[in-house]
Amino acid sequence: MKILIIGAAGMIGRKLVRALLTQGEISGKAINRLVLADITMPEKPEFAGEIETVVADLSLPETGAALIQSRPDLIFHLAAIVSGEAEVDFDKGYAVNLDGTRSLFEAIRQAGLKEPYTPKVVFTSSIAVFGEPLPEVISDTQCLTPLTSYGTQKAICELLLADYSRKGFFDGIGIRLPTISIRPGKPNKAASGFFSSILREPLIGQEAVLPVSETVRHWFASPRAAVKFLLHAAELDTAPLGHQRSITMPGLCATVGEEIEALRRVAGEDAVKLIRREPNAAIADIVAGWPQGFDARRAEALGFKSENSFDDIIRVHIEDELQNNIAERA
Amino acid sequence: MKILIIGAAGMIGRKLVRALLTQGEISGKAINRLVLADITMPEKPEFAGEIETVVADLSLPETGAALIQSRPDLIFHLAAIVSGEAEVDFDKGYAVNLDGTRSLFEAIRQAGLKEPYTPKVVFTSSIAVFGEPLPEVISDTQCLTPLTSYGTQKAICELLLADYSRKGFFDGIGIRLPTISIRPGKPNKAASGFFSSILREPLIGQEAVLPVSETVRHWFASPRAAVKFLLHAAELDTAPLGHQRSITMPGLCATVGEEIEALRRVAGEDAVKLIRREPNAAIADIVAGWPQGFDARRAEALGFKSENSFDDIIRVHIEDELQNNIAERA
Repeated sequence: MKILIIGAAGMIGRKLVRALLTQGEISGKAINRLVLADITMPEKPEFAGEIETVVADLSLPETGAALIQSRPDLIFHLAAIVSGEAEVDFDKGYAVNLDGTRSLFEAIRQAGLKEPYTPKVVFTSSIAVFGEPLPEVISDTQCLTPLTSYGTQKAICELLLADYSRKGFFDGIGIRLPTISIRPGKPNKAASGFFSSILREPLIGQEAVLPVSETVRHWFASPRAAVKFLLHAAELDTAPLGHQRSITMPGLCATVGEEIEALRRVAGEDAVKLIRREPNAAIADIVAGWPQGFDARRAEALGFKSENSFDDIIRVHIEDELQNNIAERA
Repeated sequence: MKILIIGAAGMIGRKLVRALLTQGEISGKAINRLVLADITMPEKPEFAGEIETVVADLSLPETGAALIQSRPDLIFHLAAIVSGEAEVDFDKGYAVNLDGTRSLFEAIRQAGLKEPYTPKVVFTSSIAVFGEPLPEVISDTQCLTPLTSYGTQKAICELLLADYSRKGFFDGIGIRLPTISIRPGKPNKAASGFFSSILREPLIGQEAVLPVSETVRHWFASPRAAVKFLLHAAELDTAPLGHQRSITMPGLCATVGEEIEALRRVAGEDAVKLIRREPNAAIADIVAGWPQGFDARRAEALGFKSENSFDDIIRVHIEDELQNNIAERA
């Protein structure tokens, strides 16, 4: 089993690589070759089989073909310019998120025209494909109405994924990740960053800025759940998907206020006091157009699982990122 | 008012040109320049103002910029590789229907970056953006689930149209045309051709082939209604559309059997006898995935109107195409 991970240096990518190495197999087939690609050189972990790390710029037309030269059986495509950056840099967002993905898909098709080749492709989409006007609970048949260029690019790639799969060029599955919380490390340029930082920073005794109101409701899953979604998607028989190849992942529907209450329960009042309210109209505007909750029964029926409370999400963070330690409390 | 029509040599394009020349203005502004473009040279009609006809291949990257060089105020983009052909020739369908449309949109954006320029863009989409599984009556919030590459390309262009409009690069409106019936002239490569030919051929005393069952239900509008949709879209204030720039046009929901009954009422039993049943599994399969009917209240609220019966649709054809004559009846 040869696996290619595009976006392997990212937060989810690195966790996915670790999980694959721990697990050692996919659907009972031993992993014997890994290619880890990203725009910055991914770390090369210890691995008994073949492992290759490459710098790959998806905005270059030749990158797709170069990446699949070794004909991987399974491709995880996680790489993307995030929402905030894609909104500011229109050309870059389209070049990477749309053209880069399309040239990967097209390279697979071209390889298959030479010699039969139909790898499994697991593509990470996003709930950013949905935007106002939306019902409070969004079903799997809701039309895609992105309100950002990032969401537009993801929605377009979902359509391409479905068409290339329908034509038999590869076996694709798109998973619409909830907003990942708690993201470890430093904030990135995503407008959703505060959802994580108002928990992450206080847990290590640092201040965090809350730019929106506590009534803001959204859809969340932990990084650990996201990696499990990807692994489950890789092993899933796609026949029951029919031609609808992209699925909204299950998640936790919660308000910012509920996040804060969970923080209070897990880390105490002093942690909560580290959250500084600093309303930001630009961020509030972007977030106002985002979905609040989903009916994810299709994903659940397919065996995808997520957390049930922000207490769980915080505990996952403390276990996976803080070696079970949180900041000293008064 | 300068107007560019891409796809001006096509059936709808030619009718649109005639209607524009008759009307002479759009939203009270006199039309003083027309550019008619298509993959084959469009006819040059008599016109008091400036008129230019050009051959334009949308699959070439420079075509978009060349077409908008004179900065038209209003652009009708009707050109497309039809569904049957786009399904057989994957590369050609994507090159024209996706890349051609995108390079037009991008050319407008680039022109606007040099000097303010935000034309109105009327884009013809299609109900082929919808495919099974579908409810019997499809609402305006139904997710796009194309089952053909053509439908995929139209759905992607709808997403691009919305994003470019949201960003203020142009003022776009996408109109999802019903299946046009009765198409005049010769059949094209569209899989939907029989919906027209089983009426068109018998009306002039010729045989027609029906490849599907009489219970097949679908969504129709006449060419005359389609031209009215385009003109209405061109004049419409797009503010009420919000970010959802594409709209399913109203149409007539009818079965093949109801088509035939209307033919019997208008042209008699001898006309009906000219329909030869010749089941074709490939066409039946394609059509089985198509939508059957829509709730088009959004379009209706915006003032779009269509026919109410196949009798009306047949009468439009007899008036517009047959100079009010139909074949001699026994």
